[in-house]
Amino acid sequence: MANQVNLNADMGECFGVFKIGNDDALLDIIASASIACGFHAGDSSTMHHLVTRAKEKGVSIGAHPGFNDLWGFGRRRIDMNTRDLEYMIAYQIGALQGMAAYAGTKVTHLKPHGALNNMAAEDLEFGLAIGRAIKTVDRNIIYVALAGSQMEAAALKLELPLAREGFCDRLYDDDGNLTSRKIPGAVLHDAEEIKNRVVRMVLDEEIVSRNGKRLRRKIDSLCVHGDEPTAVVAARGVRNGLEAAGVRVIPLTEMKLT
Amino acid sequence: MANQVNLNADMGECFGVFKIGNDDALLDIIASASIACGFHAGDSSTMHHLVTRAKEKGVSIGAHPGFNDLWGFGRRRIDMNTRDLEYMIAYQIGALQGMAAYAGTKVTHLKPHGALNNMAAEDLEFGLAIGRAIKTVDRNIIYVALAGSQMEAAALKLELPLAREGFCDRLYDDDGNLTSRKIPGAVLHDAEEIKNRVVRMVLDEEIVSRNGKRLRRKIDSLCVHGDEPTAVVAARGVRNGLEAAGVRVIPLTEMKLT
Amino acid sequence: MANQVNLNADMGECFGVFKIGNDDALLDIIASASIACGFHAGDSSTMHHLVTRAKEKGVSIGAHPGFNDLWGFGRRRIDMNTRDLEYMIAYQIGALQGMAAYAGTKVTHLKPHGALNNMAAEDLEFGLAIGRAIKTVDRNIIYVALAGSQMEAAALKLELPLAREGFCDRLYDDDGNLTSRKIPGAVLHDAEEIKNRVVRMVLDEEIVSRNGKRLRRKIDSLCVHGDEPTAVVAARGVRNGLEAAGVRVIPLTEMKLT
Amino acid sequence: MANQVNLNADMGECFGVFKIGNDDALLDIIASASIACGFHAGDSSTMHHLVTRAKEKGVSIGAHPGFNDLWGFGRRRIDMNTRDLEYMIAYQIGALQGMAAYAGTKVTHLKPHGALNNMAAEDLEFGLAIGRAIKTVDRNIIYVALAGSQMEAAALKLELPLAREGFCDRLYDDDGNLTSRKIPGAVLHDAEEIKNRVVRMVLDEEIVSRNGKRLRRKIDSLCVHGDEPTAVVAARGVRNGLEAAGVRVIPLTEMKLT
Repeated sequence: MANQVNLNADMGECFGVFKIGNDDALLDIIASASIACGFHAGDSSTMHHLVTRAKEKGVSIGAHPGFNDLWGFGRRRIDMNTRDLEYMIAYQIGALQGMAAYAGTKVTHLKPHGALNNMAAEDLEFGLAIGRAIKTVDRNIIYVALAGSQMEAAALKLELPLAREGFCDRLYDDDGNLTSRKIPGAVLHDAEEIKNRVVRMVLDEEIVSRNGKRLRRKIDSLCVHGDEPTAVVAARGVRNGLEAAGVRVIPLTEMKLT
Repeated sequence: MANQVNLNADMGECFGVFKIGNDDALLDIIASASIACGFHAGDSSTMHHLVTRAKEKGVSIGAHPGFNDLWGFGRRRIDMNTRDLEYMIAYQIGALQGMAAYAGTKVTHLKPHGALNNMAAEDLEFGLAIGRAIKTVDRNIIYVALAGSQMEAAALKLELPLAREGFCDRLYDDDGNLTSRKIPGAVLHDAEEIKNRVVRMVLDEEIVSRNGKRLRRKIDSLCVHGDEPTAVVAARGVRNGLEAAGVRVIPLTEMKLT
Repeated sequence: MANQVNLNADMGECFGVFKIGNDDALLDIIASASIACGFHAGDSSTMHHLVTRAKEKGVSIGAHPGFNDLWGFGRRRIDMNTRDLEYMIAYQIGALQGMAAYAGTKVTHLKPHGALNNMAAEDLEFGLAIGRAIKTVDRNIIYVALAGSQMEAAALKLELPLAREGFCDRLYDDDGNLTSRKIPGAVLHDAEEIKNRVVRMVLDEEIVSRNGKRLRRKIDSLCVHGDEPTAVVAARGVRNGLEAAGVRVIPLTEMKLT
Repeated sequence: MANQVNLNADMGECFGVFKIGNDDALLDIIASASIACGFHAGDSSTMHHLVTRAKEKGVSIGAHPGFNDLWGFGRRRIDMNTRDLEYMIAYQIGALQGMAAYAGTKVTHLKPHGALNNMAAEDLEFGLAIGRAIKTVDRNIIYVALAGSQMEAAALKLELPLAREGFCDRLYDDDGNLTSRKIPGAVLHDAEEIKNRVVRMVLDEEIVSRNGKRLRRKIDSLCVHGDEPTAVVAARGVRNGLEAAGVRVIPLTEMKLT
């Protein structure tokens, strides 16, 4: 039974004057921040703000790369050549490393965004392309991958540090992939329901799909979201629920990963 | 009298299928490549190609950051906040560092592009913003600055390694700034004329403005261009002319800079 | 003494999932909507929403073109060739006309955005470039121009329908241009103060600069903003204040313009 | 047996300083130009140039809309909501109409670009979304659709003017769709081979797939390309071959369409 887990959130998903999310509030709740790198969202000023703030809060930072699709917010599947994809990921990691220099910190994990995350979870070639970028730029970067997915397989194959991820506020399909946002109810909003699911996910090492199928999954890191009004409340509930159940919430850099 | 000088060119100024320049041909002529970083031009696949090729050729690499203005190719002056500018430069350096990992090389210089170069040459605050980005991300990166400009002053003030740059195929105003491309004749095309100007520039440590004014300038690095049909011929002429005059052409990393 | 005036607001300044402003609330207050056209902000789905909604509310619609600078939200001055500018404006007008077809309505005015508005207010060439685009695409489109500016001069020179604009929540310099947003206090937030200024502006046909200078200005259209929390309250206050003072608020298309 | 046909080419696929294709040369060969509208490529200055030049040459003009994917040049399939797609097409048509005002001409056809064309050829919903945009903005615009595709079905269902298109330099799959560019040999380069295929396609009303399957297809419009060095030669060959076989090449606006 797990007595520690990581809590991560996607952050910095802004662009110039366009703001999304409650990053500053979430930084008090999570232990690791996945920072958008300027493709699906994000810009250098926001990245600067977040690496500095994360340092102050003891929150570890990671790259949150996405498709070069600002209008679609990286949520549209794009049929992309895996070579181009690999280099695009390396670029985004490097860009965040450049910004991390402002806080004297390192980029210690990577988690793909949106449709890229979904595609890499299903398609080993996508998962490997992302993994090769990590391996080239900094092989100590932890690959945060949907538990049980092809991304997990890619991380293992490339012998990269791996954190298996679970999602607090998303339904799962029977195959362990996230239910598409296009399906009504795919995103959960009720803070109590979210908390209960998460505590069970961590303690029982089990995920229940939307059809009731029970999937064995060891979770190293839990993803909370911050882009909806109720999200910060739900994230706070998750953290409190975990701690009440005796689970410590720690940065990815302190997790004992296998 | 100088017996060695660097020859640099701007490179990788492509975007997806949109190609510009004769990068592969220029890599046989120059000693240092300034690589576009994805803002005024450039993309990760092109950057990957160039860092790999430059490594093979013994050409040192640098960042060539520009305004976030792909349509204007970074040639339009943009009235930008210097904080945002600084972080935008740090981002671009980091991105190229990420790609340089593919060749196992380092980013060893930085040269601003187009209108950003012009503005930083005239405005100390712009020059300092760029310099602070260099200093934060990697203080060993050589700041390539128009000889005699505010950028040079910024590099000196921040105690950064400095290479004073001269332009092979551009006219100069009396104040030592480049004549605007909007002025007819501002860009030279005649290979013989270009060669003669450059050899004199290096040997005599003197630049002659378009009005005939003589400006004392010690030049560490000469910029050649590759984006016009005649450019590669002119660049080859410059190198041959320099070597015929007994001047060695070496990477910025081997220059003795003050 | 004016007994009718137009109230306009900039709208649709969104991009994909990135939302700004309170457009639906403002549509109940204003009489004419200036809709972002996809360059500094805006996208076709948002434009579709607004042309449809404006039709329902009896609000006339206009183009709100800006620089191609999404990151800077069109608020950064860009040194742009006036030919390119002209065509860029024509493109944006056409794009909105395409969307207006969904509501069976016409684009009946144009008002430039942000830095483009500021530059055109000061520089006749910019003002004329915008005017030529209007004249070519549809010479019945009303040119909404800062009262007393070079844009006004351009509209008169090109013999275009002209609406002289005043700003409800912005300070003015002594020359009648808007005080830069970089100056503290340039944007007013107090609803009562805004209302009083506006009523005076309309009734007395006079604007008071931030230094107290009194400028004669006949105002046909007043601009309110919607992108700050207090903005809708202020806009409602302006409308109520005008109506209480016996001034009718009507669409630009119903104004008697000179 | 057909004694007349249209010849069209995609044009204006530039972006700022980034140039592609031999538009001016092709304008002497083709009878209808499909002009990029600023999403996968294209910009207002290029559009202005082309509408003006096409008018001089008696070439009819159409919109050539694509995905909002400049980096991928609209060749990457993007999983896009059909409502957003529809409005995005309407926007692009409108933008070109705005530019066409400079030549006093009308946009008389529409042909989707790249991956959007491929997806609409296979997916009726995509084909209908494009068709609804046409119908809303100007129901007289001719929908240029791959012969035998779902786009053709969409045009028929919406009762839009329809031109069935054949491709001069592309292989076909057995189902009548274009062979993917990812397949070696999918794009033909030999001018003689291209000419012979095309003449047969028009005279016999038959296309032969890459596996030798014969497909009955009545072709109203033939697409030639201009973005490769050999393309203009091939296009000239096609026109000469058709005329030698007694087939007149005419604008889409003069074709008798069913």
